[in-house]
Amino acid sequence: MNMQNIIETIRIPFEEMRSVFTGILMRSGFSQRKAEECAGIFAVNSLEGVYSHGANRFPRFVGNVRDGYVKPDAEPTLIHSSGALEQWDGNLGPGPLNALFASDRAMDLALKSGIGMAALANTNHWQRGGTYGWYAARKGFVMLCWTNTEANMPAWGASDVRLGNNPFVMALPYENEAIVLDFAMTQFSYGKMETYRREGRKLPYTGGFSDKGELTDDPAEILQTRRALSIGFWKGSGLSLLLDILATVLSGGLSTYEITRSKTEYSVSQVFIAINPRSLNNNPSIENSIRGIISDLKKSLPVSDDTTIRYPGENIVKVREHNLKAGIPVNKELWDQITNL
Amino acid sequence: MNMQNIIETIRIPFEEMRSVFTGILMRSGFSQRKAEECAGIFAVNSLEGVYSHGANRFPRFVGNVRDGYVKPDAEPTLIHSSGALEQWDGNLGPGPLNALFASDRAMDLALKSGIGMAALANTNHWQRGGTYGWYAARKGFVMLCWTNTEANMPAWGASDVRLGNNPFVMALPYENEAIVLDFAMTQFSYGKMETYRREGRKLPYTGGFSDKGELTDDPAEILQTRRALSIGFWKGSGLSLLLDILATVLSGGLSTYEITRSKTEYSVSQVFIAINPRSLNNNPSIENSIRGIISDLKKSLPVSDDTTIRYPGENIVKVREHNLKAGIPVNKELWDQITNL
Repeated sequence: MNMQNIIETIRIPFEEMRSVFTGILMRSGFSQRKAEECAGIFAVNSLEGVYSHGANRFPRFVGNVRDGYVKPDAEPTLIHSSGALEQWDGNLGPGPLNALFASDRAMDLALKSGIGMAALANTNHWQRGGTYGWYAARKGFVMLCWTNTEANMPAWGASDVRLGNNPFVMALPYENEAIVLDFAMTQFSYGKMETYRREGRKLPYTGGFSDKGELTDDPAEILQTRRALSIGFWKGSGLSLLLDILATVLSGGLSTYEITRSKTEYSVSQVFIAINPRSLNNNPSIENSIRGIISDLKKSLPVSDDTTIRYPGENIVKVREHNLKAGIPVNKELWDQITNL
Repeated sequence: MNMQNIIETIRIPFEEMRSVFTGILMRSGFSQRKAEECAGIFAVNSLEGVYSHGANRFPRFVGNVRDGYVKPDAEPTLIHSSGALEQWDGNLGPGPLNALFASDRAMDLALKSGIGMAALANTNHWQRGGTYGWYAARKGFVMLCWTNTEANMPAWGASDVRLGNNPFVMALPYENEAIVLDFAMTQFSYGKMETYRREGRKLPYTGGFSDKGELTDDPAEILQTRRALSIGFWKGSGLSLLLDILATVLSGGLSTYEITRSKTEYSVSQVFIAINPRSLNNNPSIENSIRGIISDLKKSLPVSDDTTIRYPGENIVKVREHNLKAGIPVNKELWDQITNL
């Protein structure tokens, strides 16, 4: 066995992870309040099992701060306001903090008008889209939000990469938790495909194109062509384009092709639409309606004994509970790298 | 060659098709105004190449009217209004007319507040979702809308059918036309799979599961199992669920599992969210931003010489122009059936 293939995983308690992240951010120019808030988002992402946008991406975020792409002390400024719409300039502030701010603005507008939209130009990577879905849903709101990204996916029928893997989030409150759908436009993220390649495994389904233009489940081939498959083929390609166009025009910010001109992905565009269910007629009861739908879903016949039919976000709650008790699993080398930041 | 396999296609001028539809609807209890409006929607759907929800579905619609599921004289009634939200009861009126009405309400609310939502309970099949995207976009609005349906797709990991093939539409104005994304949750519609089976062809990609639970491109197998594949596997399954939950709770109407209890699909729930771009800051110019994105998309390198990279809705304009000149292609037997309605 190749020793380099042994990946040692350690478990870090949530509070320790947050505290380590906070210290690093404070040494990188963040105020204590902002460092704590931002560190909390990264730590919760890992706590909830979204490691790719938690600890795993933290060093890159700190790098972007230290390289000046993310401005720790920047605050969003209002560009334009009309009725239940607001357009904000993120001023290249920390993506997660700007996105929380815009979520709050959308909810505030929804409190007044039932529905509200805050769009954010000139902001930075929000890390995990689900963060803002969970945030709004736990405050009792429906949230639809999305971001554009740099180009990393071909349009349907194209061999070069001009579309973003723009994540789209739909969330609403459920029991004391939430139902949160958070998905991007490629069938598998490049991070996921790298994991499969590292482990010498094929993807469970075809996930992109070989250099002969054929669909393949070999992650190494796809990582070479960079031609990741869009979900639903032409459908995901169309959805990616529409999310980019709407993020761009609703925020007045940059589009995927403009973001892609820079070597580093920064200054992206985002949209947050909140709906206040308390503005709706509650007859029939909204809570009962959702319970009925989930209860019907759960009656599904699984294809095999070891299959569980889940609603989006359901597993997050279990992973969170487990990791709170057992500690958050982190690659030891990564953790060493982080503590030396 | 089997004579039964020869399908004779004739071409009907648009005005003739609309006029024939209008007459049939007037004989089915529609007022002249409503008959003309509804006939126009069906005829335009065929004119624009969406035959499955134009002439092809017209006999079924007339059947639903004559069987009392669709009430030709019913008008939507306001259930609840709060700020920029409205909830309407469709009173089982004609789906296309109710959906146009709700689109107008959403746009009216967006004129006042920048963004507005009209949700519609107890309505009927809207036929083609794109109709309402095109309608709003040509009036200068951004539109997001969706409907739930009866159950016709399994949840991810399930062998029985509990989710709807809920279409989702995103539209915005572009030049003098529109960019309109209109997609449902299965990779291929059952109608499309029936066409492939009739023609003895395999699907271009896997589109569902065999009775052994394996992915297959054989339309006959999928039509037997009724296990159509959701786009992006688990992602389309999650999106279908969220669209159903939101349509249900935002409208106060029935959900997919409740609709499925009836033998005939009726009393569905829909959501229309309009945004008024004229409420936004127009610096940078919205028109220029969209042109820039489409222009970049068009620079894509096609995978083959006969591939064209298109934006959603682009082809509609060409088909419309062609069919306006050449007449709308219709199966002769179907047209005979329609003229005898």
